[in-house]
Amino acid sequence: MRAIKLTIAYDGTDFAGWQWQAGQRTVQGELETALAKLTGETMRVTGSGRTDSGVHAAAQVVSFTTESPLPVDVFPRALNATLPHDIAVIDAAEVPLGFHAIRAAKRKRYRYVLHDAPHHDVFLLRYGWHIRQRLDTDVMQHAARQLVGTHDFASFQTGGSVRKTTVRTVYDASVTRPLAEKPHVIHFEVEANGFLYNMVRVMIGTLVDIGRGFQPRDWIAELLGRCDRNQAGMTAPAQGLVLLRVDYGPDAASDETTPNEDDEPA
Amino acid sequence: MRAIKLTIAYDGTDFAGWQWQAGQRTVQGELETALAKLTGETMRVTGSGRTDSGVHAAAQVVSFTTESPLPVDVFPRALNATLPHDIAVIDAAEVPLGFHAIRAAKRKRYRYVLHDAPHHDVFLLRYGWHIRQRLDTDVMQHAARQLVGTHDFASFQTGGSVRKTTVRTVYDASVTRPLAEKPHVIHFEVEANGFLYNMVRVMIGTLVDIGRGFQPRDWIAELLGRCDRNQAGMTAPAQGLVLLRVDYGPDAASDETTPNEDDEPA
Repeated sequence: MRAIKLTIAYDGTDFAGWQWQAGQRTVQGELETALAKLTGETMRVTGSGRTDSGVHAAAQVVSFTTESPLPVDVFPRALNATLPHDIAVIDAAEVPLGFHAIRAAKRKRYRYVLHDAPHHDVFLLRYGWHIRQRLDTDVMQHAARQLVGTHDFASFQTGGSVRKTTVRTVYDASVTRPLAEKPHVIHFEVEANGFLYNMVRVMIGTLVDIGRGFQPRDWIAELLGRCDRNQAGMTAPAQGLVLLRVDYGPDAASDETTPNEDDEPA
Repeated sequence: MRAIKLTIAYDGTDFAGWQWQAGQRTVQGELETALAKLTGETMRVTGSGRTDSGVHAAAQVVSFTTESPLPVDVFPRALNATLPHDIAVIDAAEVPLGFHAIRAAKRKRYRYVLHDAPHHDVFLLRYGWHIRQRLDTDVMQHAARQLVGTHDFASFQTGGSVRKTTVRTVYDASVTRPLAEKPHVIHFEVEANGFLYNMVRVMIGTLVDIGRGFQPRDWIAELLGRCDRNQAGMTAPAQGLVLLRVDYGPDAASDETTPNEDDEPA
């Protein structure tokens, strides 16, 4: 028995999300089917977190155990040969038994893509949220900085989940227009030790209200103090969101439980 | 009667190309349908050039004449309200009667997107050509520079068309890896006073053979001397190609015939 960690990318458009569901096309389901073909084993894989339907991943991390004697570097090529084209295995590595893709995750980084021209960008239909009104990204950047730090993010989640704590630490949050040739494209990037359900999408709904001038520039600081989901902005649509990266510490085999018990769709 | 010039973008994936064809979903067909709804006139629009099925446009230029009294700045918003989401009107301007989107075009600029990691990039399925082997982009850049200048590009077209001349002037050609976070993404950009049928796609097929090391670094200079399509590289797949820009000179209303009689799919 050994444990393997895969790094995979997927275009979430045509999936009913990450998590296996009977009769639905899911990333986990397609990956488990491809692994069964390769190893002959029926298995359940663990992702670093669930993503909702339409949410993408540039580098999702997945772990599983196997009896297969295949060299680890065979996995990407062999899996890519049978996986559908909207999933790709980027990397495979052997990890200590006991590695757990959810519990061992120390940080995750997400990007949300907006575009704010009067007309929509045809190349971002599957990958961004179109806002017709020009957004004030300087004010949005000011607001995003207020997310950084250790806060109770109860205002920034979609209800339903029961959690030990809604306190998370945000290490970085920024709003930029990164593309010189496409100044209407806006990126919000946020990195934290864990995310509550829909947390990034509520953050973006809130930032867009600020960028439109519907809410004051210090609204996020106010909301963080209130811990009430009903006060923050809307939950932004799924297609703008992409899981960029999951970082694991040196003690990645530990099963120490951190706020990263999150197995939430961000 | 007045003449209007539209700048439009489209994702070419789900179109049978630019040009109107009975029973096919084409960009020209969709645009003419939307214009008929808006103006009540049955009309034929002229594009700066045809694009093949799967080829995209970031800024295609289209002209037409109309009796409609609508202010010109109403056209983008009104057309975008009825056009399908894979076409967007970016700009509209009134131009002198006699303006002709093909004949008045002075320069066109295309980009071709490649990605050369062992696994494909799931976000470029519709927008790039995947080459498994690592390409030597320094050698490709050296080769691309040999395209610049006034040459007979007969080696770089797909047969069939009858043309007065296969001489064109290439103003700029470059191969870069422009994205720090995605070093496997390669852009080939080329600007010329006109393009022969499939010219950019044959250039890329040729550059890829050079970047793979299958052909010498000065192969393009040799091919330009031979004027024989059978010697150059393959015609690269359509989905990597995007029409970036069409430039018109100050005498845009002139009907002077230049090499830009091209109404070719590049």
